[in-house]
Amino acid sequence: MAQEREQLITKREDDFSKWYQDIIDVAELAEHGSVKGTMVIKPYGYSIWENMQHVLDLMFKSKDVKNAYFPLFIPESFLKKEAEHVEGFSPEVAVVTHAGGKKLEEPLIVRPTSETIINDSFSRWVKSYRDLPLLINQWVNIVRWEMRPRLFLRTTEFLWQEGHTVHASKEDAENRVSMMLDVYKKFMEEYLAIPVISGEKSEAEKFAGADYTTSIEAMMQDGKALQSGTSHMLGQNFAKAFNVQFLNEQGEQEYGWQTSWGVSTRMIGGLIMVHSDDKGLVLPPKIAPIHAVIVPIFSNEKEKEEVLSSAKDIAEKLEAEDLKITLDDRDMRPGPRFFEWEKKGVPVRIEIGPKDVKSNSVVLVRRDTAEKETIKQDDCLKRIPELLEDIQKNLFDKAFKFREENTFEVSFWDEFKETIKNKPGFINTYWCGNPDCEEKIKKESKATIRCIPFNQDKSQGKCIYCGKDSDKKVIFAKAY
Amino acid sequence: MAQEREQLITKREDDFSKWYQDIIDVAELAEHGSVKGTMVIKPYGYSIWENMQHVLDLMFKSKDVKNAYFPLFIPESFLKKEAEHVEGFSPEVAVVTHAGGKKLEEPLIVRPTSETIINDSFSRWVKSYRDLPLLINQWVNIVRWEMRPRLFLRTTEFLWQEGHTVHASKEDAENRVSMMLDVYKKFMEEYLAIPVISGEKSEAEKFAGADYTTSIEAMMQDGKALQSGTSHMLGQNFAKAFNVQFLNEQGEQEYGWQTSWGVSTRMIGGLIMVHSDDKGLVLPPKIAPIHAVIVPIFSNEKEKEEVLSSAKDIAEKLEAEDLKITLDDRDMRPGPRFFEWEKKGVPVRIEIGPKDVKSNSVVLVRRDTAEKETIKQDDCLKRIPELLEDIQKNLFDKAFKFREENTFEVSFWDEFKETIKNKPGFINTYWCGNPDCEEKIKKESKATIRCIPFNQDKSQGKCIYCGKDSDKKVIFAKAY
Repeated sequence: MAQEREQLITKREDDFSKWYQDIIDVAELAEHGSVKGTMVIKPYGYSIWENMQHVLDLMFKSKDVKNAYFPLFIPESFLKKEAEHVEGFSPEVAVVTHAGGKKLEEPLIVRPTSETIINDSFSRWVKSYRDLPLLINQWVNIVRWEMRPRLFLRTTEFLWQEGHTVHASKEDAENRVSMMLDVYKKFMEEYLAIPVISGEKSEAEKFAGADYTTSIEAMMQDGKALQSGTSHMLGQNFAKAFNVQFLNEQGEQEYGWQTSWGVSTRMIGGLIMVHSDDKGLVLPPKIAPIHAVIVPIFSNEKEKEEVLSSAKDIAEKLEAEDLKITLDDRDMRPGPRFFEWEKKGVPVRIEIGPKDVKSNSVVLVRRDTAEKETIKQDDCLKRIPELLEDIQKNLFDKAFKFREENTFEVSFWDEFKETIKNKPGFINTYWCGNPDCEEKIKKESKATIRCIPFNQDKSQGKCIYCGKDSDKKVIFAKAY
Repeated sequence: MAQEREQLITKREDDFSKWYQDIIDVAELAEHGSVKGTMVIKPYGYSIWENMQHVLDLMFKSKDVKNAYFPLFIPESFLKKEAEHVEGFSPEVAVVTHAGGKKLEEPLIVRPTSETIINDSFSRWVKSYRDLPLLINQWVNIVRWEMRPRLFLRTTEFLWQEGHTVHASKEDAENRVSMMLDVYKKFMEEYLAIPVISGEKSEAEKFAGADYTTSIEAMMQDGKALQSGTSHMLGQNFAKAFNVQFLNEQGEQEYGWQTSWGVSTRMIGGLIMVHSDDKGLVLPPKIAPIHAVIVPIFSNEKEKEEVLSSAKDIAEKLEAEDLKITLDDRDMRPGPRFFEWEKKGVPVRIEIGPKDVKSNSVVLVRRDTAEKETIKQDDCLKRIPELLEDIQKNLFDKAFKFREENTFEVSFWDEFKETIKNKPGFINTYWCGNPDCEEKIKKESKATIRCIPFNQDKSQGKCIYCGKDSDKKVIFAKAY
């Protein structure tokens, strides 16, 4: 049986990238679509996305954000109205040139992000300071042409949410930028059990059209970084390009101050690469589509009847407490059933056989540690929620410890290069702020600045590359 | 004040089509996008769609349907695999010819519906009868180029859900076709308070690629029909085109039997045209984003303080019972606030002024009938849910009565033409089943066969056009 399993999943240490693809296959999360770079999200993968959407949507609404829907197609001329924006996105857009049997007068861009089309509406919606803040979000599909596609991480089409806001002052907009980044951090850490570092992007890595970009960065099990969410301060750039003006309290026309922020199905890629193991997917209980699977064990019809009756009873009681339970009563040997749910990352397995029925007990098996315990059936309602909480905490702690162990402080350029080469992870060191140094570091080491973390101690040091004085540490890493 | 209102909204009897657009404007449901034919769904309109999605999604899941996501782009060659399908959809597709800065080798179609791309996946997913039934749904955007766009009813891009299923037998597929049409009927009648007629489409009106199509048809206040949902029996047409085969219980390869079914943002158009009046939108409580709005009335700060304290108290109590309440405490005269919520179709208005505070009472005003009643504040928790139930029922009954009064039985062709001309509504009469008669009726009267209703009495009659014997009555109407 163990052999069957090993044949299916490449080991992480052998080939991390192949392991990642194997996990997606065996857990039935997604598959490549027929058009290169596209992705089909299968029901089990999609149910993880639905859970993410549900939690995030409530979080956004608690911050007074309202959902709306803006068109998929953006006139080419819109994209050109903001100079940095068009330069950043032009190389990766898909273009509709024909529709309704005719060549279009103006080509249409399939949205790579919606700042332009949304500001076209905002220019009509915003008239007075009384209309502000305007806090809008949409859950939509996005198209960016990708040459080296990878499921969930980089696909030609993906799903995301994009928030777009307009404020009466720069300060209000800046507060919203941090507020939404904090929402993302809370979501990543409390629900996905993924510790993240919040910080500002360097000028070279910011969003095309933003004054500055903030992001949350997570460490994967191969030591690489995954940018997991971004929150942009757009200043008045798009407001000026699209004439989003309001009458302020002093009766003067003023351009709105704006933000935009987003997270995407990419988070599912992060979820896989942070928690899963060589046996399959591992899911934090708070985002898992199934909290526990009950696997009844029987070798004849009489046993099946007895065992199933107990199993159904337990399932009903747990479901009444809002736990999501699957009862796998298929006529198969237990082994293959165990492995299937292990591969799908279900946090707890509940085994119940004829002996357990007699002793009024069940066996619980944790997906994260493989620890087993036998408990009385009556204790399920108390023990299983405890166990789920434990698993959630353990996954976060493990990921946090891993990140700590793989974050290195270095002081010299040789040390930097050596570390990046031999110890995949984050490097926390000084940078002078000069884009030339950043560019050269990237060229020589393949590591990029992931972010300039917030909440730095006020220490002083020397730029890792040029040696100039610096008061800012940054996180370098290879990244997805 | 009444004048203000009249300036905003055209009367239904003066110009129904302009009235419809006015309702969308004043209720802030949607607006035209910058690309001709596209639609921006504003927050209030989108929240109605979210409520629809929420209810329908639970209904689908209760029928064992799972959500997934399939790519937006369909290779042109896929569309061509099913002959009727390509013929039906070719004239209205949008085509991506360039992406990532290059001309594509094969043009990509922006999905006008997803049978083809989904069956491409299904051909990999379905192997054995054990994989069946396969019951999948997706909530997505759809593009069909429209020459005469109208918000919600006919736009170049719209939002919908499309269910796609594969079954081991023709019978199972046929059962699913009716099951999902019944779900739609239940949703329309119980939630949207819109009575619908279920039936089969004529050959001329069926889905391109289906064996047959069933639909639900609703009557709008101008007597026209709105097709509000469809459920298609696809037979083995797409299974053969995409090689969706399974090993049956007898160990033989067999093509799957399939269905597809969908409803869209078009339902919002129906909601408007069935219930709204010359004062604005009218919403059935079960789908309304706001159940009741509390409008505190005050003329100075001291009054405001008193009245607001009571108003907040009432709001909290109602919200604790899961009612969606808005407290409109803006410093504006009551009139404009009343009208604003009237225009937005909020089912109940709760007025509370200084006198009400003293007498511990509130005034309730129904949106549907404008009836007022004064009740004790303590009775709110009992009376408001009752009122919402009443409104829900009243809207359905009113729409049902309207449909009955505007459905005509006719026996002669002259009578048919006269009726269609002078009494907009449904005509229930015999048709011989010949597409020629159908075509000629359409040409001479602009009325089409909306459906061949299920559950007919076994009566006999003569075709309204050619006079031949017929045992089937059909519904004719002008349609959106």
